[in-house]
Amino acid sequence: MSIITIIGAGMMGSAIGVPAADNGNEVRLVGTPLDSEIIRHAKQTGEHLTLKRQLPGTFRYFPFEDLDIALEQSELIVSAVSSFGVEWFAQNVLKKISNVLPILILTKGMYLEENGSLITYPEYYTRQFPDQEFSFNAVGGPCTSYELVDHDQTEVCFAGSDPLVLAGLREIFETDYYHVSTSTDLTGLEVAAAMKNAYALAVCMAVGLSEAANADGHPNYNSQAALFGQGVREIMRLLEIYGGGAENIVYAAGDMYVTIFGGRTRKLGILLGKGTGIHEAMEELKDVTLESAVIAERTAKAVRTLIAQGKASAEEFPLMVFLDQVINKGQQRVIPWSLFEVQAN
Amino acid sequence: MSIITIIGAGMMGSAIGVPAADNGNEVRLVGTPLDSEIIRHAKQTGEHLTLKRQLPGTFRYFPFEDLDIALEQSELIVSAVSSFGVEWFAQNVLKKISNVLPILILTKGMYLEENGSLITYPEYYTRQFPDQEFSFNAVGGPCTSYELVDHDQTEVCFAGSDPLVLAGLREIFETDYYHVSTSTDLTGLEVAAAMKNAYALAVCMAVGLSEAANADGHPNYNSQAALFGQGVREIMRLLEIYGGGAENIVYAAGDMYVTIFGGRTRKLGILLGKGTGIHEAMEELKDVTLESAVIAERTAKAVRTLIAQGKASAEEFPLMVFLDQVINKGQQRVIPWSLFEVQAN
Repeated sequence: MSIITIIGAGMMGSAIGVPAADNGNEVRLVGTPLDSEIIRHAKQTGEHLTLKRQLPGTFRYFPFEDLDIALEQSELIVSAVSSFGVEWFAQNVLKKISNVLPILILTKGMYLEENGSLITYPEYYTRQFPDQEFSFNAVGGPCTSYELVDHDQTEVCFAGSDPLVLAGLREIFETDYYHVSTSTDLTGLEVAAAMKNAYALAVCMAVGLSEAANADGHPNYNSQAALFGQGVREIMRLLEIYGGGAENIVYAAGDMYVTIFGGRTRKLGILLGKGTGIHEAMEELKDVTLESAVIAERTAKAVRTLIAQGKASAEEFPLMVFLDQVINKGQQRVIPWSLFEVQAN
Repeated sequence: MSIITIIGAGMMGSAIGVPAADNGNEVRLVGTPLDSEIIRHAKQTGEHLTLKRQLPGTFRYFPFEDLDIALEQSELIVSAVSSFGVEWFAQNVLKKISNVLPILILTKGMYLEENGSLITYPEYYTRQFPDQEFSFNAVGGPCTSYELVDHDQTEVCFAGSDPLVLAGLREIFETDYYHVSTSTDLTGLEVAAAMKNAYALAVCMAVGLSEAANADGHPNYNSQAALFGQGVREIMRLLEIYGGGAENIVYAAGDMYVTIFGGRTRKLGILLGKGTGIHEAMEELKDVTLESAVIAERTAKAVRTLIAQGKASAEEFPLMVFLDQVINKGQQRVIPWSLFEVQAN
């Protein structure tokens, strides 16, 4: 049995506590300052406000003010802040931890540096605390929080530098419904996880396109599949450029699949596909946290930078270049279908 | 302008004539003996009986008795027979063709030899006619026939040994909605296309599982995505074993995506996922041509053979081994979720 402190009481942070608690571990859920209402409600009722599900009765809840208590004797920290909370996590949590603890990072996407390069969050945190010896690990693979809480069959991957640490993390979380692969190819897993947002958005644009074009509502699976395949092609190439293994396409493809059907990204993609501009679409969806849109924005910028630096060619990334124009430049163009062709020679 | 003779007036054979006709080519659609009613009806009304759509007015229709007339001055033969018609096509069509013509094969899947090996249809036909010099080419990539007839955006790949022949074929079919990549990696494309049936069936089993388990109808995307990812993993390995390029996973993933949502395979997978045995399920769906089930059956047998011969290990193919048990041995077991895990070492 271990004591696990999860920082961030959003949906995924709360959900990953479920398999850990089912395994008999002590799960301490700490809200960020944005999660006060979630923590208060869960403490009173056992229910998670946004997941709208009961959490395990053994969960212990802490408002952020009680972080120190929640960290006492903790053997593992889970960072469950969103992409917007990464700097905050470094300053307000990591700075306070003196012990050398394993840290499992749930934050999706990658960190976009000033110079337009993407780095993994473990890399980002390590640079912030060069003298510390935290063991940073990350989670990838297709997992929606609701289904995890419901004990639906789920396959994920934990990646980090030390197989022994990974085996220990796996032991905490592995159950008969939450299946944990492990990998030392952290970059590969994170590139796969980060890129899937933009490409899932593209597939959902095809859904919107057909909704706009077909009064009978027939869905145009050919075009969705064409963009899915092109997404796979461009992610394979990005894995190569970033030095990640090709086998991570397994997680990227599964993750795209879940993201296409998962809700929020889908809504944005459909609006864009129907011809709504990005600003108008974001305004229409403003009550929904569009973290996925921001991740797509960042990856598109990063690929633009790779192309500008000559590390990639625009011809290899027709879909990402198109997405960059739609998302970051507010242009609405026709999907460049013929640019996805590749010819034998 | 070319004269194109399509043998087989099923849905895909008829559909691929649409972009060719739109490009101004003369399209001659020849029914097999099973297609008499389709040909008669189309000749009278211009409508395709099973596609339930009007075909281009320039199509010329031929019953099989008039094959010779349909072949006169023809510059390209398209073989649009199903997996069940391959031997028939060799004996009744190829044997009658004396000229050296390019042949484009639409038949999905691969040929299962007596010894349990899979070979591509071009390879099969070449072995049947070792003295002929036909140029056999094949089509892969995600394409449902209905959507092609509707001019929905579609991306496919033509593969064969000669880039010049492929370029010529592409010129005949390429339109602003039917996008043709070309590749000399015929084996890779065909392995990708053949394997997707079995793995799409697996994903649809997860749909059936969740329909059976969740009275509220919520869909368990995590488990669908897990099986999708595992399918990608096993197809990547099969590409390696058969000597096909890893980049063909682009077509396999897109093709799986279309097949999961495309109808017939989905129905069978859902029944299996709900716990119906394969024989009962096939009986229930007997009015539907389950070519995809047969393709899945054959690929599962072929992988079983690879394992028996020591060319692959069962541990690398937990999902195909499971499918083999369900489809070919009539066993119904629980999906072996934990076997899909891969550990760092």
